[in-house]
Amino acid sequence: MSRDLQSWNEGAAKTAILEFVEQVASAVPVEERVAVFDADGTLWCEQPVPVEVDFILRRLAEQAKGDPKLRKKQPWKAAYEHDNDWLGQAITEHYAGDDTKAKMLLGGVSGAFAGISVEDFEAKSGSFLRSAQHPTLGRGYLETAYVPMVELLAYLEANGFTNHIVSGSGGDFMRPISQEVFGIPIERVIGSATVLEYANGGGTLTRKAQLGFLDDGPQKPIQIWTRTGRRPLVAGGNSNGDLPMLDFAQRPDGPSLRLLVLHDDAEREFAYTSGAEKALAEAKKGGWTVVSMKDDFATVFAPTPRAEVDHR
Amino acid sequence: MSRDLQSWNEGAAKTAILEFVEQVASAVPVEERVAVFDADGTLWCEQPVPVEVDFILRRLAEQAKGDPKLRKKQPWKAAYEHDNDWLGQAITEHYAGDDTKAKMLLGGVSGAFAGISVEDFEAKSGSFLRSAQHPTLGRGYLETAYVPMVELLAYLEANGFTNHIVSGSGGDFMRPISQEVFGIPIERVIGSATVLEYANGGGTLTRKAQLGFLDDGPQKPIQIWTRTGRRPLVAGGNSNGDLPMLDFAQRPDGPSLRLLVLHDDAEREFAYTSGAEKALAEAKKGGWTVVSMKDDFATVFAPTPRAEVDHR
Repeated sequence: MSRDLQSWNEGAAKTAILEFVEQVASAVPVEERVAVFDADGTLWCEQPVPVEVDFILRRLAEQAKGDPKLRKKQPWKAAYEHDNDWLGQAITEHYAGDDTKAKMLLGGVSGAFAGISVEDFEAKSGSFLRSAQHPTLGRGYLETAYVPMVELLAYLEANGFTNHIVSGSGGDFMRPISQEVFGIPIERVIGSATVLEYANGGGTLTRKAQLGFLDDGPQKPIQIWTRTGRRPLVAGGNSNGDLPMLDFAQRPDGPSLRLLVLHDDAEREFAYTSGAEKALAEAKKGGWTVVSMKDDFATVFAPTPRAEVDHR
Repeated sequence: MSRDLQSWNEGAAKTAILEFVEQVASAVPVEERVAVFDADGTLWCEQPVPVEVDFILRRLAEQAKGDPKLRKKQPWKAAYEHDNDWLGQAITEHYAGDDTKAKMLLGGVSGAFAGISVEDFEAKSGSFLRSAQHPTLGRGYLETAYVPMVELLAYLEANGFTNHIVSGSGGDFMRPISQEVFGIPIERVIGSATVLEYANGGGTLTRKAQLGFLDDGPQKPIQIWTRTGRRPLVAGGNSNGDLPMLDFAQRPDGPSLRLLVLHDDAEREFAYTSGAEKALAEAKKGGWTVVSMKDDFATVFAPTPRAEVDHR
């Protein structure tokens, strides 16, 4: 019995991973072992809202606090009133194909940190990620990383894979903690991008109030190709937005591994399939590996909370 | 005397490089040692036209051969008639700030390989780069790489630097040969991007007849940040389009190296400063290191031509 993947229960998912890695070891050159993982809902918790959304909501609430007119306008209104229903709907409806609320949300999101330098943004997101508390799980955001997935990343890396995060959240948002939490260096974090502006003679890159691209759906394989020049061998996701990336992880002549994390553990995490219906159907059809958090994860989160968590 | 950089003559440029690397070795962590280099005119020859332009012109000429209407329209007309003057003007005027011809050229360029998959494009560009001959230098395109610059890349890598190509030419165009010629793996090739389209259920990425972004001018620091999440320590370029990237390579509290290749060697390569005037002025003002091909390069090109060059 393998001593790898100790936080995984024995079962079809664990077996599929171990067998795939064994196959690859003898069949695929190291430089082609590209693995890509969605972040929110795949590597760490995305409920009740994705981590970056909380980060931005706190900023919008802060802006609304200083400007009563903003309090009547979405998404500042929802942020100020802690109206998680409206915000949850924006996300759910986006995955179901209706972008009306998502576009309003993105409008606020894009402007939330406009006019600040990329280095200042990095400092702000790093400080938030290291201190903020998940609203219901009683742990810091960094501790909402799924232990079995972090183990999987390490196992893949030990077997010559190059792991990437390919997230709908901002690349610059996750970078300050990607190495520490997921063992993934910052240059391998691929995410949504804000339009940046360069000012000569001082070298400052400033964030504009405009989304460059949303790294979701078909944009994920596009970004993977643009950044790595390769088709991945391993792809992990949990929602319809990951479907094209999972579909992209295929080779005409060799093994590939497609993992779809199923949120079916209301007790230890959350239970929901909303926004994942198409991906689940495709997984069934294509024989992809569905990872049940309830059945396949022996542990979900790390047992010991960090000492320095901000308990707001 | 150092045995590194043997193809460099002793002088201010070589000394600046050696002293910079020595300084960095004790002052900067390895993961921060990011180096970025323009390709055309910096790592290999860009005269009479950049390598990719020749690749595309041959394609446009082929298209015009099959369609007489195209022969009356730029840039197909110039390609079909081998009108290098028109093409050279498009590039020169672009660097001087007039994009009229450049936009016509880009129109043809963007459509030249539209509708083909990224893998097919890779095969086409790789095969072109490995077989096509430079029009006047009597050598294959791969042998127009500047030996001292290739040596510099290896020297930086040996000292813990991570080298990147940051080119106005297409990233996908250079990737098939970046490792072989420059020792730079494909995921560290940053270049202009064509809009790609993803088709589910088969996983094909197809090139569209539309430029995603031109990786030139302020787009260079933007792409460097988006891709690496870092500010470079070393930047090398040769034209006004590289100015923002060179400007970006600075740290408030540490050493950086900005190299500007000066084409002043009509005998061994080409002599021109057109399109580099602002960069040269800035180099003087900011104390950047100007690399004279005539004075600083002991050798320009590798002595032995490859055996398998296509002598069309």
